[in-house]
Amino acid sequence: MNLVVVENIYLLVIVTLISVLQNAFFALKVEKECKTQNVNAAAFERVSCANRNCMDAYPTFLAVMWCAGLCLSQAPAAFAGIIYLVVRQKYFVGYMGQTSQSTPGYLFGKRVLGFLSLMCIVGISSYLLVRFYGNGYKEYVETIANAASALLLIP
Amino acid sequence: MNLVVVENIYLLVIVTLISVLQNAFFALKVEKECKTQNVNAAAFERVSCANRNCMDAYPTFLAVMWCAGLCLSQAPAAFAGIIYLVVRQKYFVGYMGQTSQSTPGYLFGKRVLGFLSLMCIVGISSYLLVRFYGNGYKEYVETIANAASALLLIP
Amino acid sequence: MNLVVVENIYLLVIVTLISVLQNAFFALKVEKECKTQNVNAAAFERVSCANRNCMDAYPTFLAVMWCAGLCLSQAPAAFAGIIYLVVRQKYFVGYMGQTSQSTPGYLFGKRVLGFLSLMCIVGISSYLLVRFYGNGYKEYVETIANAASALLLIP
Repeated sequence: MNLVVVENIYLLVIVTLISVLQNAFFALKVEKECKTQNVNAAAFERVSCANRNCMDAYPTFLAVMWCAGLCLSQAPAAFAGIIYLVVRQKYFVGYMGQTSQSTPGYLFGKRVLGFLSLMCIVGISSYLLVRFYGNGYKEYVETIANAASALLLIP
Repeated sequence: MNLVVVENIYLLVIVTLISVLQNAFFALKVEKECKTQNVNAAAFERVSCANRNCMDAYPTFLAVMWCAGLCLSQAPAAFAGIIYLVVRQKYFVGYMGQTSQSTPGYLFGKRVLGFLSLMCIVGISSYLLVRFYGNGYKEYVETIANAASALLLIP
Repeated sequence: MNLVVVENIYLLVIVTLISVLQNAFFALKVEKECKTQNVNAAAFERVSCANRNCMDAYPTFLAVMWCAGLCLSQAPAAFAGIIYLVVRQKYFVGYMGQTSQSTPGYLFGKRVLGFLSLMCIVGISSYLLVRFYGNGYKEYVETIANAASALLLIP
């Protein structure tokens, strides 16, 4: 693939790669608990459940991040992806702890996924508006998206 | 990303976005049942199982739809994607009902996925034929795909 | 989509299509065992578990393969994808057998996924180096990747 394409997606690829490494980390945790299953069945159950919840949401996350990155702008999408990975790490670690103390629900990272979906919608709307009405405010929308992605840092 | 790329994928992005919203709807259903798990364990089991079956097939659906859209033509691929989402909604709702009455199997949307796979194969074959024998019937194949996608409406 | 894009991804699409067919094969196995669940619950449990482990790793595999194919070169990525599918087939068949005899773990295809991740990293590094220092060794890296993918055949 020529360099023009890579230039537009390389940040997304880096985030995808980090998420793959995180998946491998989760899988290794499950593998490790799986071998000591006889000793501690409850811990295996918790790790396996946390891994499954993370894996259930993974294709959704990838699809939304790539769509947002392709349709609008890759920098805020990749930044939101990093935030999502941090949230997921905290969720997984929290799940492995005592379930009585910390009780994370089934869902996590709702705000990040919502932001990425919003980016998709804005990108598509922007494209349709440009197509039917002419351009001129594409850069304006991208600037707003860059600024809004910083708001995700607010806990 | 420039507008040329978005022009060729925006219908696929819209379908992907709708599927993400549907995933969020499923996940919220599971979350809701998870909190009332003590009251009604059977209902939680059913919702969780329906969600897992849907999530198992989700990456396959996304991969086939995007490949079909990129290789051949995006309009019939996006249309088939919409049909698939409707089938999935019906499957999920049917699963949540009484299992004795409605017994949906493990698989669903076989016909739609088969159609999308066929589109991929046709697209790749078409590309290889064009590459080795010269072009001229690309528009012909796209017209047939557009017409064939309407056949999915037949129940 | 025009032919220029298809030319750069058609091998990846073919591998994706084969993986979808394999997924369908796995799902049909589960469906079949699901119907005879009352007779042989242990077999259903095994097939279902094998299918779930395969499906858990599927989005990761797709993401890594496409990133590697887009960032560096599609031929070695598609080849590694084929190797991964063979490994997965062996894993699934081995899981269905007597668990006492063959005890495949939770993970499989680690080496292939590691190779694909390495390809991603090399591709991104290569892009960044080209961007900041000028080009000239892109073909060199691609040749090495093609040669290295043959090493995956060593068991």
